[in-house]
Amino acid sequence: MANSDQLLCDLRAATLTGSGTPYGLIDDAAIALSQRRIAWVGRRDDLPDAFRRFEPLSLRGRLVTPGLIDCHTHAVHGGNRAAEFEMRLNGASYEEVARAGGGIVSTVAATRAASEDALLQTALRRVDALIAEGVTTIEIKSGYGLDMDTELRMLRVARAIAAQRPIRVRTSFLGAHATPPEYAGRGDAYIDDICIPALRAAHAEGLVDAVDGFCEGIAFSPDQIARVFVVARALDLPVKLHAEQLSNLGGAKLAARHGALSADHLEYLDEDGVRAMAGSGTVAVILPGAFYTLRETQAPPIAALRRHRVPIALATDLNPGSSPMNSLLLAMNMGCTLFRLTPEEALRGVTAHAARALGLADAGTLAAGQRADLAIWDVEHPAELSYRIGFNPLHDRLFGESP
Amino acid sequence: MANSDQLLCDLRAATLTGSGTPYGLIDDAAIALSQRRIAWVGRRDDLPDAFRRFEPLSLRGRLVTPGLIDCHTHAVHGGNRAAEFEMRLNGASYEEVARAGGGIVSTVAATRAASEDALLQTALRRVDALIAEGVTTIEIKSGYGLDMDTELRMLRVARAIAAQRPIRVRTSFLGAHATPPEYAGRGDAYIDDICIPALRAAHAEGLVDAVDGFCEGIAFSPDQIARVFVVARALDLPVKLHAEQLSNLGGAKLAARHGALSADHLEYLDEDGVRAMAGSGTVAVILPGAFYTLRETQAPPIAALRRHRVPIALATDLNPGSSPMNSLLLAMNMGCTLFRLTPEEALRGVTAHAARALGLADAGTLAAGQRADLAIWDVEHPAELSYRIGFNPLHDRLFGESP
Ligand SMILES: [Zn+2]
Ligand SMILES: [Zn+2]
Repeated sequence: MANSDQLLCDLRAATLTGSGTPYGLIDDAAIALSQRRIAWVGRRDDLPDAFRRFEPLSLRGRLVTPGLIDCHTHAVHGGNRAAEFEMRLNGASYEEVARAGGGIVSTVAATRAASEDALLQTALRRVDALIAEGVTTIEIKSGYGLDMDTELRMLRVARAIAAQRPIRVRTSFLGAHATPPEYAGRGDAYIDDICIPALRAAHAEGLVDAVDGFCEGIAFSPDQIARVFVVARALDLPVKLHAEQLSNLGGAKLAARHGALSADHLEYLDEDGVRAMAGSGTVAVILPGAFYTLRETQAPPIAALRRHRVPIALATDLNPGSSPMNSLLLAMNMGCTLFRLTPEEALRGVTAHAARALGLADAGTLAAGQRADLAIWDVEHPAELSYRIGFNPLHDRLFGESP
Repeated sequence: MANSDQLLCDLRAATLTGSGTPYGLIDDAAIALSQRRIAWVGRRDDLPDAFRRFEPLSLRGRLVTPGLIDCHTHAVHGGNRAAEFEMRLNGASYEEVARAGGGIVSTVAATRAASEDALLQTALRRVDALIAEGVTTIEIKSGYGLDMDTELRMLRVARAIAAQRPIRVRTSFLGAHATPPEYAGRGDAYIDDICIPALRAAHAEGLVDAVDGFCEGIAFSPDQIARVFVVARALDLPVKLHAEQLSNLGGAKLAARHGALSADHLEYLDEDGVRAMAGSGTVAVILPGAFYTLRETQAPPIAALRRHRVPIALATDLNPGSSPMNSLLLAMNMGCTLFRLTPEEALRGVTAHAARALGLADAGTLAAGQRADLAIWDVEHPAELSYRIGFNPLHDRLFGESP
């Protein structure tokens, strides 16, 4: 009954609003849903008369949170890199792996070779696993095409996912992800010849919600990224950036200067960068799956981010190379275990702060007017969502509709 | 059709036998099933005439492995320790957590307070998540009762799981897990008054398949463990031991002297201990979930275990304190990522070697005569099972029967 008026009751609500209580927690709460939106949320005892006629549904004491938001994924891609994973564990060097065709170029080749339908079918398996964990919004990047056709194909697949599944998809154009083999050593030419024209074409087709880049020694320089960002801003598209993952090139400051929604990874971020992000309201998206897979030892500067009140979001970075992680709940546990986030920070990181990282004002909290994207959990306390490792306690998920 | 004769074909088989190829892999294999056993496995082209009349079932190129075996769990317990997890991340010291009633004593209290049915219902949720990953055998320990009644109740629940779900359960009596509060500082008295009498009573009731202990400064000394082991051996029960997790007390050598099936954890195991285990055929069960959760930095001596050809098994250690990990696939990934196991070692660790750690000769490999416990995966290559993080590619699972 997608549009009937419904009253969820006998539940605990983690609203993730700044209501003063940890998690914005309300015991014995009620949530009124109408027109695919939250009409009211609060203590059951405070329910206004107007909502008493709504059809009640008891959740038997379960916990309700906003639907989860995975704000950084590369869920659309061809192939997998299990063979490379195995080679490394059998002692092969990075060079040997590269000579065997491994690394990002192997994913670029597999993605270019895959049809739109093949890309869609493999992406849907990954997205379905996230949906089963209560995810209601996912960000998906291009960036394994690195040519006009394939970059656009990836983004069309991302849009097709939203048509095939009850999930909201936000796309990021990531043409500036790596230099493709045919432009090896000619990063500037790649930016001019391919990246920027592909961005314009993708935008013209309505495929782009934000523009992303990878600012790193092995990827693009701040100057190259800045040229892409200037085009993005001229097209009125928000930007975000893979920054300070392996070294500090000042990517976060660059992103902040362009009013970025988020800067992502950030293991090598310094206090200057933190300050710049605080000034521009840029969200810090941390990605423990990549930190774990790469066996990185330097954690992002969580204490500095807290001190400067930079909102911290958490995501899977779901990708075939540095983070073949397909569980946002596991990213929450790793955020706590590896980066010492509190369980409350982890939950805000996949709800309220993840929404900000995507520029979404209508998701990520339980509050009147927000979309009725909810996750209902078989747990007593929200800390349990971060505490368990590889266990999914989801009871049900609402995607802009009543159960 | 539980007992009909069936021929699985159009599949790739990772037999995990010592057949010389990696993973004992057979491309274009066939598997004949009859009477809840594997009647034949090999190259499709080599199929003997006798099996050609079996009802064929195409698996469309999927990978078949033995059903997975989680050979070290504490899946039966009361309560959870999310509040303690959260306290720690908010900066509480171990002492403060202990003063707030945290630590193992909180699980002992919750387990003692739980009815048999309550313990069963919560354990079934955990076991169901493992079944969904292709697990067909699970080991379950007592050790959160630490009194006669509750130790026996935990083991009865473990037996009840096997009656309620299509999974084989092997029980381990772990009375020597910790000293309960009422015996604080009187470990010897606890062993005499409670642990050994409870072991005898549990054995008399047919509840015990093996006897386990925790040999550590915070638990029991080698002498105390040896007294339990002597009783176990007199009852003709095999033994295993939590050893060398936080320090080296010579637990592995002690276990080897008693012909232990396995010694588990082993972060602080030295070469002497490895040699002793090699001599007694004791399996090394490594538990990356606990290593990860405790943020341990010393890994088990994998190189020495390889050098001395000690079989390595991998398990979840599923428990509410040091490893709230409920995914054996994730244990495989962590075994590779954190301990640098190869994907083949990881898969042997949850099949052939896990079976040895439980003393089971009829599971853990695909070979004629073995139980028809199979996992069927939507992957091309067995390395994919370790490569992904938090993704379950199981297509189907057979538990001693045809599909
Ligand atoms: Zn990324
Ligand atoms: Zn254990």
